[in-house]
Amino acid sequence: MSKVFVNIGLSLDGYMAPEGMTMGKPEFKNWGAKWGAMMAWLMGQQYFRENVLKFGPGGETGPVNDLVRSTFERIGANIMGKRMFDQGEVAWPEEAPFHTSVYVLTHEPREPWVRPGGTTFYFVNDGPQRALELAREAAGSRDIRIAGGADVIQQYLSLGVVDELEIALAPVLFGAGRRLFEHLREPAPQFRIDRVLDGPAATHVRYVRQ
Amino acid sequence: MSKVFVNIGLSLDGYMAPEGMTMGKPEFKNWGAKWGAMMAWLMGQQYFRENVLKFGPGGETGPVNDLVRSTFERIGANIMGKRMFDQGEVAWPEEAPFHTSVYVLTHEPREPWVRPGGTTFYFVNDGPQRALELAREAAGSRDIRIAGGADVIQQYLSLGVVDELEIALAPVLFGAGRRLFEHLREPAPQFRIDRVLDGPAATHVRYVRQ
Repeated sequence: MSKVFVNIGLSLDGYMAPEGMTMGKPEFKNWGAKWGAMMAWLMGQQYFRENVLKFGPGGETGPVNDLVRSTFERIGANIMGKRMFDQGEVAWPEEAPFHTSVYVLTHEPREPWVRPGGTTFYFVNDGPQRALELAREAAGSRDIRIAGGADVIQQYLSLGVVDELEIALAPVLFGAGRRLFEHLREPAPQFRIDRVLDGPAATHVRYVRQ
Repeated sequence: MSKVFVNIGLSLDGYMAPEGMTMGKPEFKNWGAKWGAMMAWLMGQQYFRENVLKFGPGGETGPVNDLVRSTFERIGANIMGKRMFDQGEVAWPEEAPFHTSVYVLTHEPREPWVRPGGTTFYFVNDGPQRALELAREAAGSRDIRIAGGADVIQQYLSLGVVDELEIALAPVLFGAGRRLFEHLREPAPQFRIDRVLDGPAATHVRYVRQ
């Protein structure tokens, strides 16, 4: 069966996004520089530059690039929150960078939005369990990525359905922002360390649910 | 010159201590089991059992044990907060497990408290900078450990004097408790990844200030 996984960059102090990131210009509270420092491990990787950013040939190769490739290639469906979608709707290129069905958790009904390149956004009004059912149907033998934001990841963690938690822990301190780990329902899910990749700009740890 | 370092266990969700840990019995909010799960990487190591817990010969050897030994052997002085001291005063054996001078940050004057085995507690009423000066004098060529708790580590991080931040990140989720990273003054100190040791029960990452 498909695995449900999270794969995110995280600041050392536990933030997925620095304070001010939803407030527009990257100069605001210096969020652009902070976010860039957190995601530096990703931005230069060949797979990400060629296949996601569509910058053309070039970029770093090696174990981190292999990790990025395997992460993207195993995704059969994505789930995201409405805030993440709203930010992306105005920022993604016409060919949205998912190339799968994407289930958006929202209270607002909306017809599916088909983008060139294989991405279709479906707007789910019946909660996270229903979105997961739909994503499982769409994913086939591939896996389901809970893309974000933090609140959506928290909901799926509390439901106990996240099989794998992949964190790229970057050596940056944000001081404030949107924390990954908050509002967890007790008992919290139990994980074990499955794999560590010691990269120069982040420590990539994969946790598997016990 | 002596390095100033922090070496702690941390839950995956960023807590140094689970909720309820200061409230007495380990059954309260299950804090004993949670804390034990976070520190499982340490409790079985030969150096810790023989030299800190004084359990006599035995225990695990290998790279984690070597890390524990080198951590303890480089300490020339400790600094801690009053709450940590208060908890330890009633819990430590007569031979307190420091074997160095320990500077306790407090507003209450008190004469130095000399313990057998080389530990003397000094009570510093003039703030963290003064405690660090005293610790530097006492440490000689060895290093200064900021032992805790979280609030004291935060004060020294905000002062920008922490040279090395060593974290044993355990795959446990507490959900609530005392966070390591809070109340950081801007601009936050900048660290780089220096070394990662991939242990079975924790990921040991050492960060060095840039």
